[in-house]
Amino acid sequence: MKAVLVSPPRPGVRIGDIPEPRLSDRGIYIRILWTGICGTDREIINGVLPIASTPPGKDEMILGHEAIGVVERASKGLEDLVGRYVILVNRRGCGRCLNCLAGRADYCETGGFVEAGIKGLDGFMAEYVVDDPRYIVEVPRELLDVAVLAQPLSDLEKSIESVLITQRRMIWSCEDGTYRCRKAIVIGTGPIGMLASMLLKSYGFRVTIVNRRDLYPHEKNMISRIGVKFYNSLNGYEELYKEIGPFDIVFDTTAKPSVIKSVLRFMNYNSILALFGFARAPERDYLDSEELTMIAAKNIALVGVVNGQKRHFETALEHIASWKSSMPGALESMITARIEIEDRDRVLKVLREKPPNEIKTLIVFSK
Amino acid sequence: MKAVLVSPPRPGVRIGDIPEPRLSDRGIYIRILWTGICGTDREIINGVLPIASTPPGKDEMILGHEAIGVVERASKGLEDLVGRYVILVNRRGCGRCLNCLAGRADYCETGGFVEAGIKGLDGFMAEYVVDDPRYIVEVPRELLDVAVLAQPLSDLEKSIESVLITQRRMIWSCEDGTYRCRKAIVIGTGPIGMLASMLLKSYGFRVTIVNRRDLYPHEKNMISRIGVKFYNSLNGYEELYKEIGPFDIVFDTTAKPSVIKSVLRFMNYNSILALFGFARAPERDYLDSEELTMIAAKNIALVGVVNGQKRHFETALEHIASWKSSMPGALESMITARIEIEDRDRVLKVLREKPPNEIKTLIVFSK
Amino acid sequence: MKAVLVSPPRPGVRIGDIPEPRLSDRGIYIRILWTGICGTDREIINGVLPIASTPPGKDEMILGHEAIGVVERASKGLEDLVGRYVILVNRRGCGRCLNCLAGRADYCETGGFVEAGIKGLDGFMAEYVVDDPRYIVEVPRELLDVAVLAQPLSDLEKSIESVLITQRRMIWSCEDGTYRCRKAIVIGTGPIGMLASMLLKSYGFRVTIVNRRDLYPHEKNMISRIGVKFYNSLNGYEELYKEIGPFDIVFDTTAKPSVIKSVLRFMNYNSILALFGFARAPERDYLDSEELTMIAAKNIALVGVVNGQKRHFETALEHIASWKSSMPGALESMITARIEIEDRDRVLKVLREKPPNEIKTLIVFSK
Amino acid sequence: MKAVLVSPPRPGVRIGDIPEPRLSDRGIYIRILWTGICGTDREIINGVLPIASTPPGKDEMILGHEAIGVVERASKGLEDLVGRYVILVNRRGCGRCLNCLAGRADYCETGGFVEAGIKGLDGFMAEYVVDDPRYIVEVPRELLDVAVLAQPLSDLEKSIESVLITQRRMIWSCEDGTYRCRKAIVIGTGPIGMLASMLLKSYGFRVTIVNRRDLYPHEKNMISRIGVKFYNSLNGYEELYKEIGPFDIVFDTTAKPSVIKSVLRFMNYNSILALFGFARAPERDYLDSEELTMIAAKNIALVGVVNGQKRHFETALEHIASWKSSMPGALESMITARIEIEDRDRVLKVLREKPPNEIKTLIVFSK
Repeated sequence: MKAVLVSPPRPGVRIGDIPEPRLSDRGIYIRILWTGICGTDREIINGVLPIASTPPGKDEMILGHEAIGVVERASKGLEDLVGRYVILVNRRGCGRCLNCLAGRADYCETGGFVEAGIKGLDGFMAEYVVDDPRYIVEVPRELLDVAVLAQPLSDLEKSIESVLITQRRMIWSCEDGTYRCRKAIVIGTGPIGMLASMLLKSYGFRVTIVNRRDLYPHEKNMISRIGVKFYNSLNGYEELYKEIGPFDIVFDTTAKPSVIKSVLRFMNYNSILALFGFARAPERDYLDSEELTMIAAKNIALVGVVNGQKRHFETALEHIASWKSSMPGALESMITARIEIEDRDRVLKVLREKPPNEIKTLIVFSK
Repeated sequence: MKAVLVSPPRPGVRIGDIPEPRLSDRGIYIRILWTGICGTDREIINGVLPIASTPPGKDEMILGHEAIGVVERASKGLEDLVGRYVILVNRRGCGRCLNCLAGRADYCETGGFVEAGIKGLDGFMAEYVVDDPRYIVEVPRELLDVAVLAQPLSDLEKSIESVLITQRRMIWSCEDGTYRCRKAIVIGTGPIGMLASMLLKSYGFRVTIVNRRDLYPHEKNMISRIGVKFYNSLNGYEELYKEIGPFDIVFDTTAKPSVIKSVLRFMNYNSILALFGFARAPERDYLDSEELTMIAAKNIALVGVVNGQKRHFETALEHIASWKSSMPGALESMITARIEIEDRDRVLKVLREKPPNEIKTLIVFSK
Repeated sequence: MKAVLVSPPRPGVRIGDIPEPRLSDRGIYIRILWTGICGTDREIINGVLPIASTPPGKDEMILGHEAIGVVERASKGLEDLVGRYVILVNRRGCGRCLNCLAGRADYCETGGFVEAGIKGLDGFMAEYVVDDPRYIVEVPRELLDVAVLAQPLSDLEKSIESVLITQRRMIWSCEDGTYRCRKAIVIGTGPIGMLASMLLKSYGFRVTIVNRRDLYPHEKNMISRIGVKFYNSLNGYEELYKEIGPFDIVFDTTAKPSVIKSVLRFMNYNSILALFGFARAPERDYLDSEELTMIAAKNIALVGVVNGQKRHFETALEHIASWKSSMPGALESMITARIEIEDRDRVLKVLREKPPNEIKTLIVFSK
Repeated sequence: MKAVLVSPPRPGVRIGDIPEPRLSDRGIYIRILWTGICGTDREIINGVLPIASTPPGKDEMILGHEAIGVVERASKGLEDLVGRYVILVNRRGCGRCLNCLAGRADYCETGGFVEAGIKGLDGFMAEYVVDDPRYIVEVPRELLDVAVLAQPLSDLEKSIESVLITQRRMIWSCEDGTYRCRKAIVIGTGPIGMLASMLLKSYGFRVTIVNRRDLYPHEKNMISRIGVKFYNSLNGYEELYKEIGPFDIVFDTTAKPSVIKSVLRFMNYNSILALFGFARAPERDYLDSEELTMIAAKNIALVGVVNGQKRHFETALEHIASWKSSMPGALESMITARIEIEDRDRVLKVLREKPPNEIKTLIVFSK
């Protein structure tokens, strides 16, 4: 079968022809429909993701961690899954620590977790995948066209779960019991920034999405469909602060110290800075003792909030279903290209380099 | 009556003779027994605490926020309080935001809170104080000698409350349901560091207290009574890490970026850095994008955790009672000096400058 | 304007012609589109709801607490609300207790809350309503046809919130971090039972809906659209227990002691019985000491879980949006009749007595 | 060695001479100092505790689950435990369900847990016990005389943990952030009722302890030391209600339906009924639909709250230490008799029947 193959830590990518997987005793045999391409995939291909590694004993790894498939065969006892559309959970636990035993590999403490297509486990960019039913979530047929977004969205479901638990330290909801008085700043206009904005808006936050540049037309279109405000932070956050007041939640997708520094002094009492981003290039900036003092004095929290698990895929699919009804066309316009795996050159090109105007590109393996 | 007076933001301190307060309709009249001196008091006296301010319309403010007293008179309906020993809650709410309405001025969102002896409200270094019964907590007679420590300890009770709520994001207790597998690092050997170590030990954490220098004899004595480990961090944290493994909770009392930086890379998955300190001198250090990435990837939280409220004074008194039984002499040895208010020169000297060998100095107003 | 009027505690209902409300300074003027009829409305009309009362100083009250409207006019500063579709929050706080101050009138402690169309406040069965913007939630146009169900669903959103907080006492999610191993039993096949089943299914529970009789055809149709199992409990719960094992959550809409008794002994360790129902006719059954012992020994919780607030209307609208995509036609088939207010005789008839085959009947005031 | 032996489900008790246990590879060898007698022990001896069972493959079981000992020997790597005073955790997990894996056998879901001296595991009424270090908690020497009370108190620590988590559904603390406005009713004046009263008082609740009869002199003495109010409920709870207002927490140790019934109608909005008791004799009373309606309408919770775990033994020891300082003599006066194991007749007599004036009787094995 055709599969997209990588060999981290070495850079490079190829489309190979490899044997189909074999159905195990407690497994299901999934025909992959399409897979999303994520920035992480390109970092592996470019050899710049230190944590990337092939499965034990193997030189190559199948890439891909965002995939929709259909169950074609299933081992005894699981036959009722045949014919179901599914999305695959990409991170799997170490099998030893309490969080992993409780289905929360996002909080693995041993570092022994694996991630399909990234760290120690074959991914999903292949015609067929055999998997354990524990790691699949059923997708209603009505959501099939955009359901692949449930993978990146699952990460954000975990983010907001983390934020809301952290904020249980105080009364953080507004006088009407909602979050409508709370100002959320999302830094970054990539797919994660877009989905984070949609999710925070669903929770009732007043969302401003931010970039250090003006928006591209396709971004502008997307943001107007979501119905949030945009702010160009090239000259800092002071203007935004003057307009909307102190920030209650800052959701960062950049991992840039300079960004954190510039936003920190406009944060409200009891506010939270959610750190989602992984640095793509080294950067540094000063952290001042006054900033640490302000964090202490104002009960501010900075919290790492990445990696959704199975429960988050479920809530992600619910939000996707909800947005399909309430923001028609918004999710659909995030899928900016679908390229068939047979179209090898285009597939390899788009894997190596992000095209302008991309929000999310899919590789189609089957229909 | 005699009172210790300051005029922030101007530096200086004097012992003045001012009129006794008058008992209001819903008030209680408290004879102060003794008050503790805190680093914050010295910062006000030295004119280096920017948030310090006198009460509205006044030029001077009574200093002091750590006080034990006895109720001498009470207005109608409160007579049963007469004769009770009490400790006074120092921070009071803005009366408007939800947290203040719910008795949690530590989470005030308007900035309109006041703090006795610090910000906008007379403090407790006086022979008599009139107060509202809402802001007093009864002290069992058996704890009278050390109960003044319940004020700084109340701040730490809030700290650990904040830490434990933040950590509800994951399963953070150990396989036996306790915190005995968790390594706590307390940075700083002042009274806050000492009390933080005692409290974390009570919660079951494996505590190491840290300073960048060797211990003074009185500190060494104190730490051995508490029964925690000491580590000299002059050459960084690597040796400690090699010995005990990654850190689960770091409790910082320094607000020094260089300290945070040096400890950050030894923090465990799912760990938390509690920021308690207020900077005493400006300092800065680099924050790197790799550090932000690590915070995100490992679900690390940095959380501001200062300012206890009435409920924390209650639990602080319980811990003090407990430690009196289980660590006899430990708390008593924290009270390193008692100076009578009549001894003006010594009082003023110790207010202006921390004596060597001080853990906690008391000013005695009455007996 | 036309309005449906009642005079509790006296039975009776009439359609009257009353003056239109006047727009206040901080108000919005809403044209009602349609209102749902609920069992509570019929209890008021039949004079059997003890808590029902007219607004202070009035003999009559406008009935109705489930309403969709469109903002026609708004006072200064609120003009951007004009043209928006809205649903109205029916319970409003006492203005004194902490829960009401925090927008959680469902947890009012003084009993001083009011409920539109039920207790001390005019309801929404009228051509026009003037209200405070705090009590409205915007409805996306796409959901207009079924959004009125967000009122009863808001109650259930609070229910599941209560259940999940109560269950934080232990690890209650399954080994894959979801609720897929948990068996939920919903007792009652009215609109509340149907919506509860949908909601619990959305959360991942394995749901069985129960009645003491066979289903009517319209109920059967509805349940098959939802995709949950039905069980006839005429002969008790033993057969169900044998088939699916012990029950993890029982959601009761009946308030019948005999029902509680018969289900209690099949409840699992760590299970929860959510009490949602209000008794419609007095009934009693024995409670045995063995049952109390079992509740203690198995960590079982019985919790009252009624009355959603504004935040729950928001999440209810999200679930409604989600179900429109993922269960097409299910919600639509819950609206079993729409009767125009002009059709007085039919309106009065359906208000007085529940028609066979009703799931939810709407009274249409405008279009 | 001497040991107290039982053979459930058959009634009876004997003091036998059995071989000393052998130290295992990962074990510690504990010389028992003294053990407490609990009502459960007498129920086993009288053959009325259905869940009691001997260890697999054995006809007899060592009785006793409240024990203080000193570590005499320890296997390799555990030598530093030698000489430490310890209390033993009595319930141990099934090793399979998530709660047991996380050290919370109190929330075991499989029913596969064992309980020393009660269900499937030898207890502690013997001269020596070999155990796993996971199940011991160190006791400060200063607490040795009363530390055995940490076993029953550990159950109550879990109770209040359960109560406070359940009450996170709403804002339940008072306007000053404490529990001082909350009225707690403790039903039962046995050792559990006494300790529950002390614990609730420590948390700030206004506690009334209740029995259906007047107090015995030793109970009166005890209650006055604790400093809580007593109420004789022979004629119901109306008088108490008139005096203090609605009840916020009812802590039941009786498991009597008639008691629950009589107290239920005086419970406040948002109140909680903690069910701790195990029925000693069958009793029944009516449960009315109006009562179920009231539970629903007032957000009342009834929650089973028994069985502490290791973490609760730790907090129990902290409370014991605290009360030794703040309520001198109170705990000491709970130990109403100490009988040496050599005094066989008295030991057997007191095991078979509770003496008048007993609060807690100890059997002394060593000194």
